[in-house]
Amino acid sequence: MENFNFYSPTMFVFGKGEENNTGAYVKKFGGTRVLLHFGGGSAVRSGLIDRVKASLDKEGITYVTLSGVQPNPRSGLVYEGIELCRKEGVDFILAVGGGSAIDSAKAIAAGVPYDGDFWDFYDDNPNRPVVEKALPVATVLTIAAAGSEASGDTVITQEKGMFKRGTGSDVLRPKFSIMNPELTMTLPPYQTASGAVDIMVHVLERYFTNTPDVEITDRMCEGILLTMLNEVPKVMENPGDYEARANIMWAGTVAHNNICGVGREQDWASHEIEHELSALYDCAHGAGLAVIFPAWMEYVSQHHDLSRFAQLAVRVLGCQMDFAHPENTVKAGIAALRRFWHSIGMPTSFAELGAKEEDIPAMVENMRIGQRSIGHFLPMTKESCAAIYHLACR
Amino acid sequence: MENFNFYSPTMFVFGKGEENNTGAYVKKFGGTRVLLHFGGGSAVRSGLIDRVKASLDKEGITYVTLSGVQPNPRSGLVYEGIELCRKEGVDFILAVGGGSAIDSAKAIAAGVPYDGDFWDFYDDNPNRPVVEKALPVATVLTIAAAGSEASGDTVITQEKGMFKRGTGSDVLRPKFSIMNPELTMTLPPYQTASGAVDIMVHVLERYFTNTPDVEITDRMCEGILLTMLNEVPKVMENPGDYEARANIMWAGTVAHNNICGVGREQDWASHEIEHELSALYDCAHGAGLAVIFPAWMEYVSQHHDLSRFAQLAVRVLGCQMDFAHPENTVKAGIAALRRFWHSIGMPTSFAELGAKEEDIPAMVENMRIGQRSIGHFLPMTKESCAAIYHLACR
Repeated sequence: MENFNFYSPTMFVFGKGEENNTGAYVKKFGGTRVLLHFGGGSAVRSGLIDRVKASLDKEGITYVTLSGVQPNPRSGLVYEGIELCRKEGVDFILAVGGGSAIDSAKAIAAGVPYDGDFWDFYDDNPNRPVVEKALPVATVLTIAAAGSEASGDTVITQEKGMFKRGTGSDVLRPKFSIMNPELTMTLPPYQTASGAVDIMVHVLERYFTNTPDVEITDRMCEGILLTMLNEVPKVMENPGDYEARANIMWAGTVAHNNICGVGREQDWASHEIEHELSALYDCAHGAGLAVIFPAWMEYVSQHHDLSRFAQLAVRVLGCQMDFAHPENTVKAGIAALRRFWHSIGMPTSFAELGAKEEDIPAMVENMRIGQRSIGHFLPMTKESCAAIYHLACR
Repeated sequence: MENFNFYSPTMFVFGKGEENNTGAYVKKFGGTRVLLHFGGGSAVRSGLIDRVKASLDKEGITYVTLSGVQPNPRSGLVYEGIELCRKEGVDFILAVGGGSAIDSAKAIAAGVPYDGDFWDFYDDNPNRPVVEKALPVATVLTIAAAGSEASGDTVITQEKGMFKRGTGSDVLRPKFSIMNPELTMTLPPYQTASGAVDIMVHVLERYFTNTPDVEITDRMCEGILLTMLNEVPKVMENPGDYEARANIMWAGTVAHNNICGVGREQDWASHEIEHELSALYDCAHGAGLAVIFPAWMEYVSQHHDLSRFAQLAVRVLGCQMDFAHPENTVKAGIAALRRFWHSIGMPTSFAELGAKEEDIPAMVENMRIGQRSIGHFLPMTKESCAAIYHLACR
């Protein structure tokens, strides 16, 4: 096992109706004047924003609002938020929404006390500054997927050039995250399924490791995946199934606060390979992962550590071990995963996603392999990325 | 799933040699003058205390020491520690050891800024005060068992009357816990095994619940238990197996920081039933649990929710499901758990522990059932506790 630090100081407040206690938690963590930051649309229509405002009013906490966060949150709104917070004397940022609202809130929180351009923290510059001071951030989560409610990470799209960059810092970890599974019940099925794939791949990126003998995190990964296999079909069948929504929402947090990834090298190639798909076709991240991840498994299992793929197939995907021909077990496992994602309405091929085989050379070029390394379990080359895209076409 | 708060703000610093960074972490968390609190004996002889002192010196952090913590830490040393901290202007408490040193350190931390007697926090008085202010506490852990490195809980034995009481508060959660699995390699085998049972029962007390449909925590519990079944025999065979020690040490933390217990009612009857054994015979807590827990399973499975026992037997203990006669699967599971604990050198009966059947009525009387409730999965009566003690005699 590798040496590691695990630090997850966020207070998770989980369950029915907890959004009505938001004000009390803001007060507990010292907020007096809040920026309420969200997308708009459904959070307003559902009455959630009004409930959160009422809970702030109840505690005598004042607020200003900034709505309009888009999926893949933009730099423009961050600049606006920083300006607004300074002008209004805001001392606490509250994101209401999914990963986009939370990531945008973290960027604003980092920018307010910083003298320079907040983008300095996200820039490719190897000497970029780290975020050492930030306003406190907290969240009211409405989508189970990204895990940003439990991390110090944030990804923003720079509007000058439309490229995504990320940064992270312990000071950006939310002080608290309010997680009411009921708030996820009104998501469209495609978005629920896409979030489920994202959660599962957060676990799988950690599962495929070259670090030997980290059984405790192997077993926790397997437990989260088994939970997803059992619970996700229930919400596809009945979107109002509270217990299944609750299991998935908490799975999303433990899948990505790194409790199931400590002490081990992790892979993350599939996330990089998928990014090109969502950049080019504007598809949902989870849908892109459902196409890429099984193709990555097919390619990598032919080149590296078959036994780890067999372990996943047997322990998680319900396959029998073919001791004489373990490659058959691996193939059965990959097929089972693809079948599962297909069964919840996810695409598992380029065609179903609307991606085109002829775009592969351009996507591989965009990945800038050589300038940066991609993947740890099996480091990727241009050739292997191209092969994975081609496997995803079938 | 029940509503829950999960809060574990401790920074876990895990791996080889990390005790040499203790000073840097004390500084990071604002300590300038430290009480170094430990048992003595092995921590001194092994050179650990000297390494910790050297790391404090390196950062210019001064310290005073208070050694002499005993298993089942006593109130007398706590009073001494409070006095010493006040006199010496200590602003940070560092425990080096296992659960006893850590629990004693938490008591001192709570007592220093408190005007009254620290015992007020532990007293049976229903209006007892809660710990709202405390000096910051941190730990260098040397035993994988109690989980105190990750909790805000502390249990102290009052010397006037020799009874144990506990309290807990978020302000007593360690700022950081340094966990080097190498430090556990020199434990006597009996203590290693006893710690392993304690860890497993921390999970099992959470596993036996009446809350339906908390699959995510079921699966995480099962993952930790499967890890223990696989890793503990390795350290019994080879005490210097770093990887196995590391898996067990981290299992001990996740077993008891409640990440595997959120959203569900928990049981904890076996802990209460065992307390009488360790009080009367001064046996190791884990050894007592190895005797009591299988007996609790035997009794309770005959009265309540057979399916949960069958789930444990099949998913964790490697039993085949006997669909026509599930009670046979349950019996096989209980036998397998007993066999496992026996195989690592633990007692599994009164006789092996040195306990006496004729003491049962006195132990049952001491439990004060009626004045307090014991157990949630199946609430205990005097009769059921007596029956469990008798089952443990066989």
